[in-house]
Amino acid sequence: MLKYKGSSKLLLQPTSTDQVSQILQYCNSRCLTVVPQGGNTGLVGGSVPVFDEVIVSLSLMNKIISFDKVSGILICEAGCILENIMSFLDNEGFIMPLDLGAKGSCQIGGNVSTNAGGLRLLRYGSLHGNVLGVEAVLADGTVLDMLKTLRKDNTGYDLKHLFIGSEGSLGIVTKVSILTPPKLSSVNTAFLACKDYSSCQKLLQEAKWKLGEILSAFEFLDGQSMDLVLNHLDGARNPLSSMHDFYVLIETTGSDESSDKQKLEAFLLGSMENELISDGVLAQDINQASSFWHLREGISEALVRTGAVYKYDLSIPVEHLYNLVEEMRSRLGDTANVIAFGHLGDGNLHLNISAPQYDDKILSQIEPFVYEWTSKHRGSVSAEHGLGLMKANEIFYSKSRETVQVMASIKNLLDPNHILNPYKVLPHSFIS
Amino acid sequence: MLKYKGSSKLLLQPTSTDQVSQILQYCNSRCLTVVPQGGNTGLVGGSVPVFDEVIVSLSLMNKIISFDKVSGILICEAGCILENIMSFLDNEGFIMPLDLGAKGSCQIGGNVSTNAGGLRLLRYGSLHGNVLGVEAVLADGTVLDMLKTLRKDNTGYDLKHLFIGSEGSLGIVTKVSILTPPKLSSVNTAFLACKDYSSCQKLLQEAKWKLGEILSAFEFLDGQSMDLVLNHLDGARNPLSSMHDFYVLIETTGSDESSDKQKLEAFLLGSMENELISDGVLAQDINQASSFWHLREGISEALVRTGAVYKYDLSIPVEHLYNLVEEMRSRLGDTANVIAFGHLGDGNLHLNISAPQYDDKILSQIEPFVYEWTSKHRGSVSAEHGLGLMKANEIFYSKSRETVQVMASIKNLLDPNHILNPYKVLPHSFIS
Repeated sequence: MLKYKGSSKLLLQPTSTDQVSQILQYCNSRCLTVVPQGGNTGLVGGSVPVFDEVIVSLSLMNKIISFDKVSGILICEAGCILENIMSFLDNEGFIMPLDLGAKGSCQIGGNVSTNAGGLRLLRYGSLHGNVLGVEAVLADGTVLDMLKTLRKDNTGYDLKHLFIGSEGSLGIVTKVSILTPPKLSSVNTAFLACKDYSSCQKLLQEAKWKLGEILSAFEFLDGQSMDLVLNHLDGARNPLSSMHDFYVLIETTGSDESSDKQKLEAFLLGSMENELISDGVLAQDINQASSFWHLREGISEALVRTGAVYKYDLSIPVEHLYNLVEEMRSRLGDTANVIAFGHLGDGNLHLNISAPQYDDKILSQIEPFVYEWTSKHRGSVSAEHGLGLMKANEIFYSKSRETVQVMASIKNLLDPNHILNPYKVLPHSFIS
Repeated sequence: MLKYKGSSKLLLQPTSTDQVSQILQYCNSRCLTVVPQGGNTGLVGGSVPVFDEVIVSLSLMNKIISFDKVSGILICEAGCILENIMSFLDNEGFIMPLDLGAKGSCQIGGNVSTNAGGLRLLRYGSLHGNVLGVEAVLADGTVLDMLKTLRKDNTGYDLKHLFIGSEGSLGIVTKVSILTPPKLSSVNTAFLACKDYSSCQKLLQEAKWKLGEILSAFEFLDGQSMDLVLNHLDGARNPLSSMHDFYVLIETTGSDESSDKQKLEAFLLGSMENELISDGVLAQDINQASSFWHLREGISEALVRTGAVYKYDLSIPVEHLYNLVEEMRSRLGDTANVIAFGHLGDGNLHLNISAPQYDDKILSQIEPFVYEWTSKHRGSVSAEHGLGLMKANEIFYSKSRETVQVMASIKNLLDPNHILNPYKVLPHSFIS
């Protein structure tokens, strides 16, 4: 997005937890600030060295330590690239409980530190549920070994959760233990058209009942998103015979090919009859399924080809979610193109506003409106991207003052010299 | 278990968060200690007033605040009894993601504060994944409103996790927001016999693949457990025609009666052919299914009728789990009866040692051996029961000294006068 430019004179690449510990101990004793860095694929500047921070890259800590086929529990170092873990598991007949567009370069330590969401959250839940243990190094070099491989462990405070989603500001995650689900053989994908947002919503509700335990993705994109990808993304073509206002991509994953397909077909037929969907196509093979996903996953790529993009990643209760998009369109008129898509099953809207170039006048039409609107509906101003540098000061739109105060106290407790990922996550007024 | 006797002169029953806040503010300013109490069904003395603590019971805060049928998200007060919430949801076509024997009296606030596990964890995961938000009152009366209803919210540290499983020692949970799954119509239950523990293990592995997304429980009991229930539990009868060394209860939950049943039958047939199971019966109706569950859930009740019971709730990697039981039997010989059952799918063993009366000689044969053995296998000395009063000093068997040090620092930060649930969770040497 060309928004941030890193500025650092030193990159360190430790190869062991002990080295990470020594680096932090040294930096802490001299009050040198540090930016932990995984695949550097974040969207909010969380892994960017703002001034002269030392970069601690986990890239060389990329070993898979163990995998237990009975329990499906994997232990690996933080620098493992998500896609490499996926390939490893695929051979063992398992999958990662998370998947996201950046999988080719993002690292599991970064995924954990930012509590990455992505495409499988609807089915498998968040990393707070799937990560069974972490090893993390505190600012003063203390190594916290919380690398359990147990589904149940109620022996005191479950401190690993402090390191899931705190964006490297409380410690550096060095190892991860994660529960992986078995790879189920039957995957079906459908690309559907709905006449309005209300139909998308009802379709989601029906899908939860009728597809139940096999539903694994429920993504939506609006007509503007479709126009965009068809015009700016290589290899994109509309699988339906005409254009519509809303599209939904449904995926099911199960263990029985014939009964799953039968269930999905019955669901689609019923939804046609109820007029919840106006058109649709069921992928006949894996290539066609990939082409459906290409439309949904290619939106971000298509967006950067059209000029400047203002990106918002919001959680909003599903019933109100699209109202924001419509209000934004009427605020901006012809000055910008409003593109809306996201993980509807999770109430997660990716709102993108595309303009020929960055323009303060456009920005003032968007912010703080978009944050105020989200806050008013008790939503989240960052559903999955995190706060990083970009949104640290917007935290009060989603968290109460008292809660942020406790966050700051915990930061002061664990990192009293504020050496870890400065200027990120916490609002500047609370850290000084 | 007649192990603890409460000792308190004052029970308060606040009816609102504001009252909880006023109580804590008052107690904190005068250094009066407080025990938060839900249904008082815990097994480790966590809700017992040890000396003269003020009991703060949440029982009168028992309102369901809202339920959203599109998302399945419920918000309620902490004092709601689990079974009442279940009945409410049943009418709406949803279920709670947790279920446990104490459901008739335990309260959701207590469930969250102790991170209750129970029977549905295999399918729906832990409360760290399902609880979307909490409202909690800190020791000084500060109300933390973290009552989000969003599946995704990456705006700073997710502090609600500090209150899930900290057994009321960091704050009192007053409201809970929780994601509830749709109630699926097709439930099937099978009661099976295995010739040895190794077969139980292999059966679990097969079940994960073959039953995949419909597997909802995988419980086991050994021959000694079965003898016990058949002799001491009203209405218990063996559904199989002979006695065996191991029994497994499998439950599937899905959305399609005929395909689910077909899948389970094929799985059972295959397992018979592979000699993983030696006998088995598939429940023909809900009454027969209940009678299977009665055997598994009635073990604790049968145990208290036989005299003294030493109870251990352990997480151990599945492959080693039953070795502990065998070693314990050879240690104890004829002096006590060793009963083993549990949630095999989660690696959770309930190890119970029953003797005519409590006897220090027997105890010295059991402890610290049981904890040392568990620790050596990187298990947990409290899988789901928590530490409470009973196991606070055993924490080092499951957590490193550094981790306990951070726990103590957080306790000091959030409750500097140590008024909340004293003598519990943290080892006495760390709190003084």
